[in-house]
Amino acid sequence: MTDDVLLTPGPTPVPPDVREVLGRPIIHHRTGQYRAIFKRTLEGLQQVIRTRHPVVCLTSSGTGAMEAAVVNLLSPGDEAIVVLGGKFAERWQHLCRAYGITVATVPVEYGQAADPRQVAGALTAHPNAKAVFGTLCETSTGVVHDIQGIAAVTRESQALLVIDAISGLGADACDTDAWGVDVLVTGSQKALMLPPGLGFLSLNDRAWARVDAVTTPRFYYDLRLYRKALAGDDTPFTPAVSLVLALEASLARILTTGVGPVVQRTAALAAATRAGMGALGLSLFAARPSNGVTAVTVPPGVDGKQLTNTMYDRARVMVAGGQGSMAGKIFRFAHMGAIGKEEVLAGFAALEEALGALGHPVTPGAGGKAVRAALGAVQPAEVQ
Amino acid sequence: MTDDVLLTPGPTPVPPDVREVLGRPIIHHRTGQYRAIFKRTLEGLQQVIRTRHPVVCLTSSGTGAMEAAVVNLLSPGDEAIVVLGGKFAERWQHLCRAYGITVATVPVEYGQAADPRQVAGALTAHPNAKAVFGTLCETSTGVVHDIQGIAAVTRESQALLVIDAISGLGADACDTDAWGVDVLVTGSQKALMLPPGLGFLSLNDRAWARVDAVTTPRFYYDLRLYRKALAGDDTPFTPAVSLVLALEASLARILTTGVGPVVQRTAALAAATRAGMGALGLSLFAARPSNGVTAVTVPPGVDGKQLTNTMYDRARVMVAGGQGSMAGKIFRFAHMGAIGKEEVLAGFAALEEALGALGHPVTPGAGGKAVRAALGAVQPAEVQ
Repeated sequence: MTDDVLLTPGPTPVPPDVREVLGRPIIHHRTGQYRAIFKRTLEGLQQVIRTRHPVVCLTSSGTGAMEAAVVNLLSPGDEAIVVLGGKFAERWQHLCRAYGITVATVPVEYGQAADPRQVAGALTAHPNAKAVFGTLCETSTGVVHDIQGIAAVTRESQALLVIDAISGLGADACDTDAWGVDVLVTGSQKALMLPPGLGFLSLNDRAWARVDAVTTPRFYYDLRLYRKALAGDDTPFTPAVSLVLALEASLARILTTGVGPVVQRTAALAAATRAGMGALGLSLFAARPSNGVTAVTVPPGVDGKQLTNTMYDRARVMVAGGQGSMAGKIFRFAHMGAIGKEEVLAGFAALEEALGALGHPVTPGAGGKAVRAALGAVQPAEVQ
Repeated sequence: MTDDVLLTPGPTPVPPDVREVLGRPIIHHRTGQYRAIFKRTLEGLQQVIRTRHPVVCLTSSGTGAMEAAVVNLLSPGDEAIVVLGGKFAERWQHLCRAYGITVATVPVEYGQAADPRQVAGALTAHPNAKAVFGTLCETSTGVVHDIQGIAAVTRESQALLVIDAISGLGADACDTDAWGVDVLVTGSQKALMLPPGLGFLSLNDRAWARVDAVTTPRFYYDLRLYRKALAGDDTPFTPAVSLVLALEASLARILTTGVGPVVQRTAALAAATRAGMGALGLSLFAARPSNGVTAVTVPPGVDGKQLTNTMYDRARVMVAGGQGSMAGKIFRFAHMGAIGKEEVLAGFAALEEALGALGHPVTPGAGGKAVRAALGAVQPAEVQ
């Protein structure tokens, strides 16, 4: 057992009832018992994704599911638009380039959200673009992009809209079918409260039609094999059985509360976290902050790496630092999935202590007080 | 909890101490704590694989690791030789063809082992072949191929030898470096006693040089990214943290006993299982039987599917049926990893009962008696 408080934007804490399932004896996947569970979990994921279309389950990290989208939706030489703005948006670009896709980018400054009009402009400039790749929550900057707005402009074109919702789904609102998102990609280790190791995609009919037409070589990620296997509630290759069984337990938690209330609860924790940061005089990095993770600018004179290390060394609270050029300049404090009010308050206590230790004193308890005040109107049960 | 006895060749039973680790709170992978564990597990895998070369850990099923071998070792248009003989050998063929590799096959009848001279002949006929793909234990037929012999003839050519040891490693002897196997592929859910979800590859220097030269597009499985990350005991993409932590526990079990003794123990269980089948008058399907799984021909007049179903329905013992054209004609009884004498005896009791129920009576207890006799000379501790 560890006493660590994990406030990282993936992996996020795995609740005890989900961990109990992970520790059970393994079952075989070519059985009616497993197939019934697998079917139910995919139906549960449809509810979380808000889609009526089939969900594909991959044994991979989230990046594997992103790769599956690229290799099944585009052929070499096709043109695609990537909406930038962070390390994970850049992964779409790297993936596309690795597979010979011509990429037009919509530049977005780190910390800013893409303006749908920029995307509309890119679509006008690149009328042959076959896909627009975007990100719901850009985990590296804490920005939630306006996917509804981006979907509205993309719907005016022939391009498919493919969204990385790995850290966004279940934390930020995402009305996949209603908004017109064609392909949604997600992973297990964020708001789904599981260890990493499962990737998921949902594809609508337009997207599936493309899967049948593209020529990019593929095998492990050939979605045609998964579609065929899905007809028998099966996968073409051995699934990560223990994670799928645990998914049933984590989905039960989410669906018992309801997807909408889970997102609202996460939004309340995010608002409270932002209030707490404000009370400590800290600046938010994200212009359009996500519900799942709050990115905070490290105050001048404080070493960001030392800040996160001190939080962990003194209080066993782990937040994430910045990635790439944001390293040392921001830290990221997650409040999605199983993270609740108590963990957020523990995070603020650790943050206040670490800031003081690093020569940036703040009023002890000011952050936590603001968090509690912000959550005052919310029933405790809703933010556990 | 389930009372099922899993005698399937993957997933195999996960021991209680390994399951305990799976159920622990998750830790973050970008930490010194995780990196130290990851480094130790890869060193442990080097001992199991008997290689001094680096081991790459993928978040994927074993097929993902096979794909990683193909896309990193061959360019489109390259020629490769695939040694056939079962469903998993055929997967090499499907993978190569999916990526535009020209495949020459060494045909091997199901249930038979490849003759190294056939491989030598194929190498003579295809002097430009860049790789030979083979299988240590062909899980679908229960055959262990003569990889030492195949390596000896492959060493006379320029071709790399790439071996699927997914179900073989830790059950059948595999002296990777000494034999001259260039690339070894394995997975978590067989003799490593973990749930599925991790794939592994080891590559020697010759193979790594090829990785840098090939032109097949790749990203998630781009081993150059993994090599770079390995320098920091890291992975390029989020690893399946809980499975890696559990791997440390399963490797501790293997390395405490020793890889050689684990293989010997598995060999003793395999010999005892074969003796038991003989005592029941059943014929073995594999001409060169593996230590990990015994493939048995379903006796005339018995429906193979009914036989395995009856074993499960009456005794909660699960063995695997035949795959593809072998469906209904054979069943496969595993005895690798955490499967011990008690589980094998439970398997025989279930088999005897099911055969009787299906109109093929055998002397009750004859199989188990032969198993016990065969294991008589072995210390109980060695076959637990």
